[in-house]
Amino acid sequence: MSQSVFMEYKPLSGREFPRFSGIKTFFRMPVADIDADYDVGIFGIPFDGAVSYRSGCRFGPSKIREVSSLGRGYHWGREINFFEKIKVADIGDSPTVPVDQKLCFERVEKFVADVLKNKKKFISVGGDHSTTLPILRQLKKKYKTPLRLVHFDAHLDSYPAAWGFEYHHGTFVRHAVEEKLIDPKISHQIGIRGPLAGSDDLDFVKKTKINVHTVDDIRDDFKKVLKDLDKFGDEPTYISFDIDCLDPAYAPGTGTPVIGGLTTYETQKILRNFKIKNLVGADIVEVSPPYDHADITALAAVDTMFEILSIYADSK
Amino acid sequence: MSQSVFMEYKPLSGREFPRFSGIKTFFRMPVADIDADYDVGIFGIPFDGAVSYRSGCRFGPSKIREVSSLGRGYHWGREINFFEKIKVADIGDSPTVPVDQKLCFERVEKFVADVLKNKKKFISVGGDHSTTLPILRQLKKKYKTPLRLVHFDAHLDSYPAAWGFEYHHGTFVRHAVEEKLIDPKISHQIGIRGPLAGSDDLDFVKKTKINVHTVDDIRDDFKKVLKDLDKFGDEPTYISFDIDCLDPAYAPGTGTPVIGGLTTYETQKILRNFKIKNLVGADIVEVSPPYDHADITALAAVDTMFEILSIYADSK
Amino acid sequence: MSQSVFMEYKPLSGREFPRFSGIKTFFRMPVADIDADYDVGIFGIPFDGAVSYRSGCRFGPSKIREVSSLGRGYHWGREINFFEKIKVADIGDSPTVPVDQKLCFERVEKFVADVLKNKKKFISVGGDHSTTLPILRQLKKKYKTPLRLVHFDAHLDSYPAAWGFEYHHGTFVRHAVEEKLIDPKISHQIGIRGPLAGSDDLDFVKKTKINVHTVDDIRDDFKKVLKDLDKFGDEPTYISFDIDCLDPAYAPGTGTPVIGGLTTYETQKILRNFKIKNLVGADIVEVSPPYDHADITALAAVDTMFEILSIYADSK
Amino acid sequence: MSQSVFMEYKPLSGREFPRFSGIKTFFRMPVADIDADYDVGIFGIPFDGAVSYRSGCRFGPSKIREVSSLGRGYHWGREINFFEKIKVADIGDSPTVPVDQKLCFERVEKFVADVLKNKKKFISVGGDHSTTLPILRQLKKKYKTPLRLVHFDAHLDSYPAAWGFEYHHGTFVRHAVEEKLIDPKISHQIGIRGPLAGSDDLDFVKKTKINVHTVDDIRDDFKKVLKDLDKFGDEPTYISFDIDCLDPAYAPGTGTPVIGGLTTYETQKILRNFKIKNLVGADIVEVSPPYDHADITALAAVDTMFEILSIYADSK
Amino acid sequence: MSQSVFMEYKPLSGREFPRFSGIKTFFRMPVADIDADYDVGIFGIPFDGAVSYRSGCRFGPSKIREVSSLGRGYHWGREINFFEKIKVADIGDSPTVPVDQKLCFERVEKFVADVLKNKKKFISVGGDHSTTLPILRQLKKKYKTPLRLVHFDAHLDSYPAAWGFEYHHGTFVRHAVEEKLIDPKISHQIGIRGPLAGSDDLDFVKKTKINVHTVDDIRDDFKKVLKDLDKFGDEPTYISFDIDCLDPAYAPGTGTPVIGGLTTYETQKILRNFKIKNLVGADIVEVSPPYDHADITALAAVDTMFEILSIYADSK
Amino acid sequence: MSQSVFMEYKPLSGREFPRFSGIKTFFRMPVADIDADYDVGIFGIPFDGAVSYRSGCRFGPSKIREVSSLGRGYHWGREINFFEKIKVADIGDSPTVPVDQKLCFERVEKFVADVLKNKKKFISVGGDHSTTLPILRQLKKKYKTPLRLVHFDAHLDSYPAAWGFEYHHGTFVRHAVEEKLIDPKISHQIGIRGPLAGSDDLDFVKKTKINVHTVDDIRDDFKKVLKDLDKFGDEPTYISFDIDCLDPAYAPGTGTPVIGGLTTYETQKILRNFKIKNLVGADIVEVSPPYDHADITALAAVDTMFEILSIYADSK
Repeated sequence: MSQSVFMEYKPLSGREFPRFSGIKTFFRMPVADIDADYDVGIFGIPFDGAVSYRSGCRFGPSKIREVSSLGRGYHWGREINFFEKIKVADIGDSPTVPVDQKLCFERVEKFVADVLKNKKKFISVGGDHSTTLPILRQLKKKYKTPLRLVHFDAHLDSYPAAWGFEYHHGTFVRHAVEEKLIDPKISHQIGIRGPLAGSDDLDFVKKTKINVHTVDDIRDDFKKVLKDLDKFGDEPTYISFDIDCLDPAYAPGTGTPVIGGLTTYETQKILRNFKIKNLVGADIVEVSPPYDHADITALAAVDTMFEILSIYADSK
Repeated sequence: MSQSVFMEYKPLSGREFPRFSGIKTFFRMPVADIDADYDVGIFGIPFDGAVSYRSGCRFGPSKIREVSSLGRGYHWGREINFFEKIKVADIGDSPTVPVDQKLCFERVEKFVADVLKNKKKFISVGGDHSTTLPILRQLKKKYKTPLRLVHFDAHLDSYPAAWGFEYHHGTFVRHAVEEKLIDPKISHQIGIRGPLAGSDDLDFVKKTKINVHTVDDIRDDFKKVLKDLDKFGDEPTYISFDIDCLDPAYAPGTGTPVIGGLTTYETQKILRNFKIKNLVGADIVEVSPPYDHADITALAAVDTMFEILSIYADSK
Repeated sequence: MSQSVFMEYKPLSGREFPRFSGIKTFFRMPVADIDADYDVGIFGIPFDGAVSYRSGCRFGPSKIREVSSLGRGYHWGREINFFEKIKVADIGDSPTVPVDQKLCFERVEKFVADVLKNKKKFISVGGDHSTTLPILRQLKKKYKTPLRLVHFDAHLDSYPAAWGFEYHHGTFVRHAVEEKLIDPKISHQIGIRGPLAGSDDLDFVKKTKINVHTVDDIRDDFKKVLKDLDKFGDEPTYISFDIDCLDPAYAPGTGTPVIGGLTTYETQKILRNFKIKNLVGADIVEVSPPYDHADITALAAVDTMFEILSIYADSK
Repeated sequence: MSQSVFMEYKPLSGREFPRFSGIKTFFRMPVADIDADYDVGIFGIPFDGAVSYRSGCRFGPSKIREVSSLGRGYHWGREINFFEKIKVADIGDSPTVPVDQKLCFERVEKFVADVLKNKKKFISVGGDHSTTLPILRQLKKKYKTPLRLVHFDAHLDSYPAAWGFEYHHGTFVRHAVEEKLIDPKISHQIGIRGPLAGSDDLDFVKKTKINVHTVDDIRDDFKKVLKDLDKFGDEPTYISFDIDCLDPAYAPGTGTPVIGGLTTYETQKILRNFKIKNLVGADIVEVSPPYDHADITALAAVDTMFEILSIYADSK
Repeated sequence: MSQSVFMEYKPLSGREFPRFSGIKTFFRMPVADIDADYDVGIFGIPFDGAVSYRSGCRFGPSKIREVSSLGRGYHWGREINFFEKIKVADIGDSPTVPVDQKLCFERVEKFVADVLKNKKKFISVGGDHSTTLPILRQLKKKYKTPLRLVHFDAHLDSYPAAWGFEYHHGTFVRHAVEEKLIDPKISHQIGIRGPLAGSDDLDFVKKTKINVHTVDDIRDDFKKVLKDLDKFGDEPTYISFDIDCLDPAYAPGTGTPVIGGLTTYETQKILRNFKIKNLVGADIVEVSPPYDHADITALAAVDTMFEILSIYADSK
Repeated sequence: MSQSVFMEYKPLSGREFPRFSGIKTFFRMPVADIDADYDVGIFGIPFDGAVSYRSGCRFGPSKIREVSSLGRGYHWGREINFFEKIKVADIGDSPTVPVDQKLCFERVEKFVADVLKNKKKFISVGGDHSTTLPILRQLKKKYKTPLRLVHFDAHLDSYPAAWGFEYHHGTFVRHAVEEKLIDPKISHQIGIRGPLAGSDDLDFVKKTKINVHTVDDIRDDFKKVLKDLDKFGDEPTYISFDIDCLDPAYAPGTGTPVIGGLTTYETQKILRNFKIKNLVGADIVEVSPPYDHADITALAAVDTMFEILSIYADSK
């Protein structure tokens, strides 16, 4: 029997089939229909229409599937193996439309709505950061309350329109607040750093009181930051992980890299520290394979998925 | 005096300033305002929103500017030096909007309209092949007659809509015929090859009687093809050069490569053979630098620009 | 409904789902069990243990699956669309063992034996060229007669043992003849070229009378070569396509490249010319993605698969 | 109106013209004549003749121009926007001569002399580190006093001649001291690390009492180092930033990388901490684009330019 | 006289012959016969047959030879120059057999046995980590006692067989303990990190009491780790340095990278801290040049060799 | 016994030692002193100081040594094995000086003079094309008569000085004629193509009557060109092979690539056709490894060396 036969929510074994072999699904997990009985569905949103500089993250889902073949399941800190605690499936990619964001978002919203039936949990793999907005819209519709956003990024993503265009990849936080999809006061931005376009980039932060944890904050007093990020209650919580929160040395494969960023060890520490009771969804965005080298950016994304899957497993 | 001082329609001299130095403009020519007194303006349209597979050609204009530093002016066959016969200028890039094609085309059309005042000639540097359509619309408006299109490509570009989207990068020929911007009977497609999606891909050719010169035609009887391409009269003629007419060995840096393609020597032969009395515009599209190697694709584009500039100079 | 739902032997539509999206299977075809009712099964043999210089072709199947997303089905010359004529499926990868060739070949032979039940046809995607031997052994077992081998390669692959090791990637032809798996007198080697290690490299050719078509033969009189390759009868025939038959300009991503090789247009011409009534199997080997650029080698492999699938479809 | 029209000391707006568009000048600033009324002129010295291992930094100015399109102006720590406080211009490249250092330095000295008329400030973009010497010679001529040098580097650059050649890229500090262009006692070297060729490499340090801050010093007690670097008075001060002070993980694109180096965050911290009242010039050298990946080295250089421009703006 | 003349245990001078010139030997040292009178012989074991994911480390020795041209000899901390204290030679590569590990190990064992005659010391340059086992077998035979192993790695390398194959690159520690080649109680593993395949991955550690220093341990209390690693006596000690102990940002060129790893500065600190009286051998493995960028991984390997050579020199 | 022991003018056997192993010498041949009893000495001239655009060919000798590990010796057309007919040795690299051409040429001339004692034959591996001049000077001194030059190149290399510098990499033909080192009337230039800087680029050809064979000549009537190149007598003849005679698809790794160039098959045909009775020296220049991909340019250089070595062997 070949490894093409997908088994019941168990990954293809690396000890039986070399990790470079087999059809590439997220974590070598089975492909499932969107309405199957998985706990956490992983899907891609291959769309990079809204990026302002380098494109290429449309190939994020495909590359991350490939590299996730190296994924293991046992979490040393949490002492759990997500493969054994939760049913994870690859549910394919959302339909997308490369150049027409409006058409594209309609399809993404429909896809996410289908996932959310019966309170399924998920990880969305981008694609650019504009794709978080249609997800949040559906989550709000589902959970009826503004979410807590935990947002890893180099950028504030509350910037104004550009080129006469409103919904580019640096605006989702602003829109999410304006559309009341998230509650800024209980939301966090991690990894933020300058330079900025102007001091007015910070007006949104001041106005909404969203909690910003800059790289300076993390380097100056990491323990305090970890403690600040440890007070989560039952609110529906969403993690949005823009790979450019990492320094370009750790994540060259992205569209708008900013130097002076976080190390993968630092994001691991933050993710490992989380005790999130009600994680309702998560995304990993802005991985642009044409600019990656030796897949190190994709590896960072895969490890982040592992941490998020472990949070899901831990809260079960 | 440094080379940053742009002189009167003369390129920065490679014998005075090394070719790796200086601010990069097309062929090291001066930057001119759109309404200056140049003969041929070269501009970029950095837009890759409508590509169906690999993106990246938004960086085409920037990379081609850089590599054109290697450009020389004397044409061995035509025995002319375009630098001496015509006034060439870099007139910058058209404004573009990455994700919204409609907004983007409005700006491109306005930009091209400004160029066309006073019958300026031009070369547009893409960007993806969807950008040819707004150019043709303005040319039609200017010249009041359907143009002769000379179209180098691996693809017919008369394909149907995809993902519910009408104007992607494989449709411009169909739209140009439907909008009567070009006259298919006197138009040519060069470098076409399979595989196709279906036999119906050829229906458009049959219906419109556009002249198709496949790679097989060129390899089987190049002289005949050259002769077929030698009967141009006074009609306003437009050259659209999709770099993927070349084989991926010669042009790896493109979005939808097709093997079994032309060599650069073959496209040179065809271009050198042209006697086009009324060339009104031209474009070079689909150069995607993130997928190029050692700039060989960009070099092919620069040489094609040289050939087109020599045609302009020759007809003067 | 997402594209993760595999449909009945139809590819995922590129006009509905962008080609950069979706889980990567060969030609976006459904995954099938090894004993399903497909006509032609495509599978990988991810093994590069027997290469003599650069490794990396263990990643061949994975990369070729990805790049085959660009695959179309309509053959301009044969005027058929293989998607409509035959049932093609991705049947996954054969189990392999990276370092132990003996163990590995046992598993490959078992896998191929399973495919061959009920006279299924197939394309095997390597992996290195040593993997052809276990396939030929099973075909011999199935068809009870030495096969006609049509072998594209830069190398004769009838070399002696190296480093005390008998079955490296340059010996399969010698073993296939010695084990009477193929009949050299009706077999062909295409694309062969020097330099050789010594004149004794040609002894095998002289002794067995295998038909060698060098690059010189092809360039000197292509029509004659095409005619020589046109006399195939009902014998079970096998195509083994080593990507290094191509020149490194066309196929840099391989382990032991030899310059002065074929162009993709030439191999297309040869493949398109074939009228093979009884093709029983085929392989494409030695694609080494770590050494490829912009996937041009993988694209050449995908196009070769298209040609072979069209031969299967044409003979049906 | 296109973005090719250079405006009055304002950068091309990223919110109007996408950052991947437009002719590439430093920070998208206007091109100015060397004697225009800018405050700080940025120019390139594209010369890599004096490197001892990998060449390629002749392409530094061109690549850094391109990547500086991503540059923003607001400094979070200093709370100023250099775009608003000082007039910055791209004044092109100094003339250079690739293979003849003597000829080359004559031209560089003449160019720098022209810049220094009327006490213009500048940033020079290398080019290899030998180019700092002709700059320092002109600064000495202008300011009549040995400068304070603030020198970021992995290497001491006080090495002896090599291959019978005196002025290679590892000797500028020695020559600057010998020619009394800098005062070693108030000068600093930051990021220095071994291995060395011999213990005598340190003789120069001992003799001249130049202040060396090794990576060990910085990692052992960063606060002390920052304090040591905080005692600058009114002396004319010059910053020379060799990108190889950074670890190769952060700056692979350089000629003689040394592991165990600084992070970009550490150099940012040092630069942000500076209060330099009389910065008279600065350079960024040894960025070698052919060895860079995803432009991360160039991005580090651009950010360093931003920090230096902010120092200029802050002292105004 | 050209630099092809190998002199008496002195490196080719970088001040006489540029470092990019000359035939590439380890540290530009002379080539010596295996039984010459060197103190420390450096040799390669170009074998990557046992890797579980990316291959390519068969090219490790060749690339590390090339990059070691940049190697200097003076150790700032230890205040010694190994070039002056010990006789170092490049003794070529061990014979290997790409695909047959058993044959290969026989040859490696014979080669190492030849080196060990007369208690020669050595550094072996891999090749994959399975090659450490035949070395340890010969060292045990020579020294008659289980060695102290100092093992840098991301992985525990005490994993079970995979694909029915016992001696893959993740098993050498288990076999070394089972064969009593090393004494786990006095052995150390440095740089270990998760995720793991399961909690049972840790059973071996618990059972054997091998000393594990995870990345967390190092980041939480580096001084304690350094102290733990400072208690070495006269036991024959062996250093095995798997380059993947480093983070992929510092060492992308390896086969099974794991994020969240060590920096080169950290491994330098550990190596510099060592006072090993009886170092009997060392290896550096898993450098895979096809996945490296700008040779930064090879540079890290070269620097590690420098540190090990300095330990040898220091203990003399 | 390891392969580090260099045997008597026999290459390291690829059937005993895998080709990826061993210290890299040209064609795995022994290293010999400059005055040893070899017939043909191969040496490098690692110098790229005189290039006008991309540097990097200083690494040519090192890379070509590495890739020549793949070299075989039997020439199918000539039916000889150069390994058996002539004594070939790697005699190391000429001393060079990176930035000072005058110093550098003095050393190269001295090195070549040493080689030429006793009429040794040689192949010089560049390095840039300026290095041919010091070689020709010494050959003239040795043979007392202007040589026949057989020059493969895209460029005429009879250009004027640039940047006030006389001996850049595009001038050696002009100087060789002016210094009467070659006789233009019996010399040949092969692969030449435009565009040129001006029509005056051809004045030198007209004046000196050097025989130019353009790419057009070769494509229009290859037989005639081959015949023109077949009339060599006893004159001392020198082959200078600039890798940029090849098309960038075949040789991307070079400094000033020109599209529309020769294929490797075409240069093979020309080289195979040569019957040169008195070949006194040869060089292969302008291979720039940083711009190569998958070593295809270096492979073309190695094959050219093979052809030249076969000419030497054939004339013996």
